[in-house]
Amino acid sequence: MRYGYFDDQRGEYVIERPDTPMSWINYLGTMDYCAIISNNAAGYSFYRSPKSGRMLRFRFNSIPMDRPGRYIYLHDHKSGDYWSATWQPVAKPLEQYRSVCRHGLGYTCFESEYDGIKTNYRVFVPVDRPLEIWEVEVENLSGQERDLSLFSYAEWCFWHIDQDLINFQYILYTCRMGYDGDGIIDYTLRWPGGEEDKGFMASVLPVTGFDTDREVFIGPYRDEGRPVAVEKGSCGNSIAVGGNACAVLQNRFVLAPGTKKRAVFLVGVGDARTTGREIRDYYSHPDAVGKDFAALQEYWRKRLANYGCKTPSPVVDTMVNIWNQYQCHTTFNWSRSASFNEAGGRDGIGYRDTNQDTLGVVHAIPDLVREKLLVLLKGQLSEGYAMHGFQPLSWSQGSHNIPEPGRIFSDDHLWLLLSVPAYIKETGDFAILEEVVPFADREEATVYEHLRRALEFSWEKRGPHGLLLGLAADWNDCINLKGKGESIWSTFLYYRALTEFVELARRTGKDADVQLFTERRTGIKELLDTHAWDGEWFLRGYLDSGRKLGGRESEQSKIFLNSQSWAVFSGAATGEKARMALDSMHRYLVTEHGIVLNHPAYRETDNEIGAITSFPGGLKENAGIFCHANTWAVIAECLLGRGDKAFALYTSFLPAAKNDRADLYTMEPYVYAQFITGIDHQYHFGRARNSWLTGTAAWSFVAVSQYILGIRPDYDGLVIDPCIPAEWDGFEATRICRGKTFRIKVKNPSRTGYGVKELKVNGRVLPGNLIPYAEAAEENEVEVTLG
Amino acid sequence: MRYGYFDDQRGEYVIERPDTPMSWINYLGTMDYCAIISNNAAGYSFYRSPKSGRMLRFRFNSIPMDRPGRYIYLHDHKSGDYWSATWQPVAKPLEQYRSVCRHGLGYTCFESEYDGIKTNYRVFVPVDRPLEIWEVEVENLSGQERDLSLFSYAEWCFWHIDQDLINFQYILYTCRMGYDGDGIIDYTLRWPGGEEDKGFMASVLPVTGFDTDREVFIGPYRDEGRPVAVEKGSCGNSIAVGGNACAVLQNRFVLAPGTKKRAVFLVGVGDARTTGREIRDYYSHPDAVGKDFAALQEYWRKRLANYGCKTPSPVVDTMVNIWNQYQCHTTFNWSRSASFNEAGGRDGIGYRDTNQDTLGVVHAIPDLVREKLLVLLKGQLSEGYAMHGFQPLSWSQGSHNIPEPGRIFSDDHLWLLLSVPAYIKETGDFAILEEVVPFADREEATVYEHLRRALEFSWEKRGPHGLLLGLAADWNDCINLKGKGESIWSTFLYYRALTEFVELARRTGKDADVQLFTERRTGIKELLDTHAWDGEWFLRGYLDSGRKLGGRESEQSKIFLNSQSWAVFSGAATGEKARMALDSMHRYLVTEHGIVLNHPAYRETDNEIGAITSFPGGLKENAGIFCHANTWAVIAECLLGRGDKAFALYTSFLPAAKNDRADLYTMEPYVYAQFITGIDHQYHFGRARNSWLTGTAAWSFVAVSQYILGIRPDYDGLVIDPCIPAEWDGFEATRICRGKTFRIKVKNPSRTGYGVKELKVNGRVLPGNLIPYAEAAEENEVEVTLG
Repeated sequence: MRYGYFDDQRGEYVIERPDTPMSWINYLGTMDYCAIISNNAAGYSFYRSPKSGRMLRFRFNSIPMDRPGRYIYLHDHKSGDYWSATWQPVAKPLEQYRSVCRHGLGYTCFESEYDGIKTNYRVFVPVDRPLEIWEVEVENLSGQERDLSLFSYAEWCFWHIDQDLINFQYILYTCRMGYDGDGIIDYTLRWPGGEEDKGFMASVLPVTGFDTDREVFIGPYRDEGRPVAVEKGSCGNSIAVGGNACAVLQNRFVLAPGTKKRAVFLVGVGDARTTGREIRDYYSHPDAVGKDFAALQEYWRKRLANYGCKTPSPVVDTMVNIWNQYQCHTTFNWSRSASFNEAGGRDGIGYRDTNQDTLGVVHAIPDLVREKLLVLLKGQLSEGYAMHGFQPLSWSQGSHNIPEPGRIFSDDHLWLLLSVPAYIKETGDFAILEEVVPFADREEATVYEHLRRALEFSWEKRGPHGLLLGLAADWNDCINLKGKGESIWSTFLYYRALTEFVELARRTGKDADVQLFTERRTGIKELLDTHAWDGEWFLRGYLDSGRKLGGRESEQSKIFLNSQSWAVFSGAATGEKARMALDSMHRYLVTEHGIVLNHPAYRETDNEIGAITSFPGGLKENAGIFCHANTWAVIAECLLGRGDKAFALYTSFLPAAKNDRADLYTMEPYVYAQFITGIDHQYHFGRARNSWLTGTAAWSFVAVSQYILGIRPDYDGLVIDPCIPAEWDGFEATRICRGKTFRIKVKNPSRTGYGVKELKVNGRVLPGNLIPYAEAAEENEVEVTLG
Repeated sequence: MRYGYFDDQRGEYVIERPDTPMSWINYLGTMDYCAIISNNAAGYSFYRSPKSGRMLRFRFNSIPMDRPGRYIYLHDHKSGDYWSATWQPVAKPLEQYRSVCRHGLGYTCFESEYDGIKTNYRVFVPVDRPLEIWEVEVENLSGQERDLSLFSYAEWCFWHIDQDLINFQYILYTCRMGYDGDGIIDYTLRWPGGEEDKGFMASVLPVTGFDTDREVFIGPYRDEGRPVAVEKGSCGNSIAVGGNACAVLQNRFVLAPGTKKRAVFLVGVGDARTTGREIRDYYSHPDAVGKDFAALQEYWRKRLANYGCKTPSPVVDTMVNIWNQYQCHTTFNWSRSASFNEAGGRDGIGYRDTNQDTLGVVHAIPDLVREKLLVLLKGQLSEGYAMHGFQPLSWSQGSHNIPEPGRIFSDDHLWLLLSVPAYIKETGDFAILEEVVPFADREEATVYEHLRRALEFSWEKRGPHGLLLGLAADWNDCINLKGKGESIWSTFLYYRALTEFVELARRTGKDADVQLFTERRTGIKELLDTHAWDGEWFLRGYLDSGRKLGGRESEQSKIFLNSQSWAVFSGAATGEKARMALDSMHRYLVTEHGIVLNHPAYRETDNEIGAITSFPGGLKENAGIFCHANTWAVIAECLLGRGDKAFALYTSFLPAAKNDRADLYTMEPYVYAQFITGIDHQYHFGRARNSWLTGTAAWSFVAVSQYILGIRPDYDGLVIDPCIPAEWDGFEATRICRGKTFRIKVKNPSRTGYGVKELKVNGRVLPGNLIPYAEAAEENEVEVTLG
């Protein structure tokens, strides 16, 4: 059962059936203005902050689902019939209504046909302006002249989403709508202090009617599916002063058979009389929309250019070349703050989230990653740990940034030890280590010192076995070890962080640090060897009472995914233990829909372990298939050279591979979801939830691009170290790194799928599997033979 | 244009047209369980706290409006047609669907008829159990045998409303629904700590199908208007584990022509297997529902018995005898925390709100008022001022109760000086003054000392003219005077409070206090005489800069209602100034729909004045017709003996008087709304908003019962001091006070409408207008002649 397909040529996912089981959405906007749009044109928008800059309204988790949106209604003045340029909201019977949605890179198009009228409706946010463009082409395919009206429709939000959802004593008595008589609607909210926030909707075609009062346009006891104004064919010309504000502009025109008409509506931030008018005039030029659309396409072409592949697997190519990278840019831009399940209560960035998100885009936009890393470092406290989340737009140094004692996490700060080195490996920009950045609470220091303090903090926060304390939580927000509880997973992360730091220290001549942190690394390794192994797999931690978490003796969940994957990925486990750990993972955790986080699911609450034990089994952190964590298992398999296993795991949770099981999977096949329901759930094993804003995006891209395809920047050169399915003949890839282009052909003649037997660059054989940057030309032909 | 009428015989408001312009609601529940229900059965419920005990879900300010609710669907298995026992949500065409809603005291009934099937659907909350009863009688009026199914439908909320509205990462992964196979649905939410909150739905008739997963019952891209299960005529027997939880129980039965069937559904708090089963078994007895309904009727009969009247005005009788009193009990119970526009963000009680709310019920439930006053006193700080709002359920003494410095209001604590004396006048219970009650922050003291400290605090918080500082705000939350800004209105309140306190002190022999506070009262009177008068009316205050607020010189609003009404009501103004002030009010503020708060409306923000200046003109506090404040003008007119004016003002904002203009007024004709849009609004002058939870209820009852009809308890006896329209022949009233019944007949032979010429009690003429309690019999026949 499928609803659409990938059109890689155009970089689009094409939805042929509009009645998808969930809203399948896209993100429009590249800078300050973000618009989210579903395959039925539902969604919302915000300017800069999804919490305090919410412009278009959306009703989350509502009935009917997927409302409201950027609707274009059509009314036929002769028949009196009406429909919408997307299937919803009018929802004409699908036997009479043909509709195709194309989600592209930064734009979404809807081609629909009903009663001899074809519409082509395209929505995008231009690269350089805080507004969205709704372009509608209407074509008369019928033999008769048609007298039609178009109605644009958007519902305004109250800017502050938390108020919008709950404070009806206030939000319903503040808007001051206006219409200038010249096709532009003015949306103004005046705040108690007198400041005003403003938006507008403008039409390029002449306007024959308008509405700004939602209740007038839609009518009582009706919904967006049958607005009274559309049914009548004429607007109420309402001005909302208080109440619910909307924007409706009506264009009426006669279409001769075979002819077309193009309408453009502009919805943006700013004053209607000044900005709105300028914008309307600008886009009234027949080429303006097309020019901006071309600029948008060029923007995305460049963003995706630094990594491309051609493999025997079309789903891999689709994800690597287009959708996984596109999703990485989305998570990098918006962290976890705005989707159809993130209503915007969380503004700004999550510390561990954004650190990891940089890993998915550092190959494409290293300069922006540099900026973001410097922002992140301002969220680190002088003691070395980090704020769990913060809003860069309003950041100021001070003690107000110090979290409650119970809100310090064991992992947040340590991710800096992965994100900063990854940036330097990509760019060679060691100078970043000498940048001086303030801490969140007080003082400032070099980036190098920031990293050092992160390690110092964790060193001081260790428990009875010398392993890292679990604190509020580690990566798993729902494992909340009390008191002396220790996280073995955090300790693996720490081990990896120490490794990265020692290398940085070595390369920058910090000899004392090399010695100190090498010793600590050795010490941690010994502690892990002694206390982390449970016989067939690695433990997840120790509880405050001393009980083991995730071991054979544990009363409930006996094995956790993250301890196995990170034992290997961190480098702390090698050889037999590494293999046994992953084999145990296969035995207990791997399912046909991906790898569950723990097994078996917790059934009874255990307050020494945390919130994970109270979720129903198979959902979220309690034995759900958390896709983010699945990626690390893929990497671990690659590190063991087990290409078939790595690839099987990679595809087990790959959304593109779910395309033909969409009725079970339910979410978008083109982007990762946060989790897939695990096997311990009685009803929905295999069903995905919470798409788009997940750390899965960055790590899955790292897994496939750097470990399966094996093209991995290091400090001195590009490592080529594929670990692919044995059955592949090979693959091709293009990588632009440090301004140089590497065109890589990998051959797998002996079907090992792993191990570089020969590396030839521009016809010259190189030792090992590293192409030194220093020896690379501008353009490089790389031939790799596995075996 | 009207939608219904008052059926005073049954104490019901009868809605004959279901398509009311707004949801017209009712409150069910008398103790811990509160259910709100609209005239189309929409609404929600909560247990104890509307913030953290939300059981049934409602979508506020949504499209479609008025969803979801307590729906009963019917499916005809022969025709395949389906409808609902209320017009919404299925919304059959009103030409084919007859529907009458009766909102009664603590219950709501729906009589509907469609396609030969009549349903009588009654919802109520019994007096003594935390649950709601949905009783449905189905009658076959057609000539054919009918094969029917009933489906009950409710959507469960996540208990914590703030989470339910925004935290979809969590709320969608927590519910654990169950069905016991025996007609009872189990709704369980387990919290991270392992505690569980539980609810149930049970059916008395045998169950042939069920659903607990909203998405399964309703289906994608559908809404409550056409659930897929109802359309098919069979449930999905779904168990929601995570997702959106609902409760649906299906009863299927065959009805011979002319026969009836009775179904009962029970929705309550508690464990399905224990409480749910007990409750179902209890109500399976054929008389149980009827018995509980009779107990509910008796409960309300008693509550309303202490005041009744028969006047020449049917709307006055309706309001005084039934609806105004009923609304007073509702505001007393739920403060401002739960309605269709109060989503529940404000939990607990508002200090000034609840103090005033006691005035509307003290005649009916003095014991409960005593309890509430003692609770309120715990919200007062040892310095004398009060917490603006607090939650009694979770109150504990401590410095955490100390408000931010900017959150101290000039009036909150002073309302105790009206509420406590009113209670003592009603009961004679001077002993309450010696009760020892803790302060919110530290220490404890007698009630008398609490009152004294309230006065001391305000005495210390005075400005350059010796008048009370405005602080965060006074009664008008949107007048936020900075720094030295003074509120003349608060000073009038203070004057009134001093008067009340001096009398209490006198009656309890606190001579030193009598002297001190009499001096202060005199001083305040002199300051008001000197600084409050503006020539034709009273000023509203002085700004920090010294500018006058609400005077002839003011740049924007030049006159405010509250200064005129309270000048008189407080007793500070008498004679010519009092008359001039009210005459100015008539000239500038009185409109056909009520009295606006200020005139003209603010157009430009003035930050020295506050938020009032940023609302659009005519809405809320900026020149809206704030009904609460209208009541004080009625009282003021009565104090001047101007009965025609008082009555005209009283009826100008009386909801019952709006019954035939419902399309303009839009809200319930049976209860007060917070405000009616003022004349400065360009579009909606006369439209009401925010019904039910408003201080208007208590004060309007005080105005009509104690001032227009003039029956007013005092310390020594019942004052009879009517001020009625000249054209009235008189009126009759019954008042039960201190356990004695007074049957009062007032005659107005000389058409003065004011001034007691003769007072006869049980045949004996008394001097003045006071019936001493000491001289009253158990039953008293009172004859009053005005003139």
